[in-house]
Amino acid sequence: MEMWFSDRHTDGVKLSIRIEEQLFSAQSEFQRIDVLDSKEYGKILVVDGDLTLTEKDEFIYHEMITHVPFAVNPEIKDVLVMGGGDGGVVRELIKYESVRTIDVVEVDPLLVEVCRKYMPEIANSLTDERVTIFHEDGVKYIRSKADTYDLIIIDSPNPFGAGEGLFTKEFYGNCYNALHEDGIMINQNESPFYEEEAYQCQRMHKRILSTFPICKVYQAHLPSYPSGHWLFGFASKVYHPLNDLKKVEWKLLGVKTKYYEPRLHAGVFALPVYVEELLRDVE
Amino acid sequence: MEMWFSDRHTDGVKLSIRIEEQLFSAQSEFQRIDVLDSKEYGKILVVDGDLTLTEKDEFIYHEMITHVPFAVNPEIKDVLVMGGGDGGVVRELIKYESVRTIDVVEVDPLLVEVCRKYMPEIANSLTDERVTIFHEDGVKYIRSKADTYDLIIIDSPNPFGAGEGLFTKEFYGNCYNALHEDGIMINQNESPFYEEEAYQCQRMHKRILSTFPICKVYQAHLPSYPSGHWLFGFASKVYHPLNDLKKVEWKLLGVKTKYYEPRLHAGVFALPVYVEELLRDVE
Repeated sequence: MEMWFSDRHTDGVKLSIRIEEQLFSAQSEFQRIDVLDSKEYGKILVVDGDLTLTEKDEFIYHEMITHVPFAVNPEIKDVLVMGGGDGGVVRELIKYESVRTIDVVEVDPLLVEVCRKYMPEIANSLTDERVTIFHEDGVKYIRSKADTYDLIIIDSPNPFGAGEGLFTKEFYGNCYNALHEDGIMINQNESPFYEEEAYQCQRMHKRILSTFPICKVYQAHLPSYPSGHWLFGFASKVYHPLNDLKKVEWKLLGVKTKYYEPRLHAGVFALPVYVEELLRDVE
Repeated sequence: MEMWFSDRHTDGVKLSIRIEEQLFSAQSEFQRIDVLDSKEYGKILVVDGDLTLTEKDEFIYHEMITHVPFAVNPEIKDVLVMGGGDGGVVRELIKYESVRTIDVVEVDPLLVEVCRKYMPEIANSLTDERVTIFHEDGVKYIRSKADTYDLIIIDSPNPFGAGEGLFTKEFYGNCYNALHEDGIMINQNESPFYEEEAYQCQRMHKRILSTFPICKVYQAHLPSYPSGHWLFGFASKVYHPLNDLKKVEWKLLGVKTKYYEPRLHAGVFALPVYVEELLRDVE
């Protein structure tokens, strides 16, 4: 039997992965969750029909969303992860001894449960004693916080469905308030290539830019995501992602990685001409 | 009616693009050539069933295979293009006034004819007076050349089928001989992500490394190619791609681009940890 899962990239483009077995499927209070198993990508987490992570390339996404801010401020202590119920961001965070508390705001308890059962190598990180999981709406959670975190990572799927509220100007403003005076906010910033995502990418950039004094976009090669060209936003109150890079300090921490290295740091912020133009249009 | 073209990336992965119309299909003496039309990617050239170029993202491939060597030696005069019958590389080359001769060795006359008919915006470059097209086998063509070119661009599809001979050690040795003493050779170097291509990528790198004293690999975000993470090889007799970068000289030429810029130059050579390790294994 041949079974293929297709991830829609646009109305006219889809990436299909051959599936060995559907390991799990259920509708939670918030979304439909599927876990598929494949030879090429290993286990795949699918949320509301969209490919969310694969065992083969999740290291790229999770390393790039986590280590870039630590190479700028290697003394980050208190971290908030918005979404991230799969545990991938937390797995990277707990590599830092300096990190004291990790608050994970994941609205859907079933997502955490499913990832812990089917992807323990990623999700077992959530049992680290520094981690507290809040099964709450991130938009509400952040409103009451002030001057609390060194780093906020917005590990949200996309600007539709359950996570919609994590992409508004009000939300970014509340993140700003929840950060210490040298705080950094990182968000997944969609892809610049296909029109629909490029529009979302511009909209996010514009909103963050109007909230934080420093806001730069960086990129990674992420094969399982639409176009494979994925962007992240680095927003900060004081640190400049390039001028304040602490290459040696980060290297001395001895954090093991498979994608990120400070050697790549400047390069990931050097965006192709058409991407620079896309962002400049809203600056 | 729904019609989809699927490009096989591995046995378990394919990228599918919705097709409006099949514009052309024929078997030449060397290969099967198809031209498809799509809303998302514009016209698509398919050779032996493999996606070869799309109107939407060919600028990324062609700019990256062409402008990187010119930013290191902006005085390149005589250029050999191996393959490249679609005219994409030549369209970038003729942006340089310094370029005096462009020899294109494209074994298949039908490929040139089809591209000129269906993709004139790319292939009309081939009518430039500096261009000579040789419908010959590249492997044979290169054997008789010595100290002739400043730059050789190996714009070959992949190490299987018609272009197989363009990936041997003997061929790279002949390219070395065909270059002037400060010559540069650029090749498309496959992708590091899927196992089969990663192996080809290593094999090419090893062979070129044993032929040229300087050999570095660089990358681009190329959405329509497998994994979207594409590599190129920069091989040279004397120039180092980073130490000899001539940023200002290149900028002064006023070449218009949509992807490449010397601002990106160092970053494209900064490869992710897992790619560095893949290449180091054969160094």
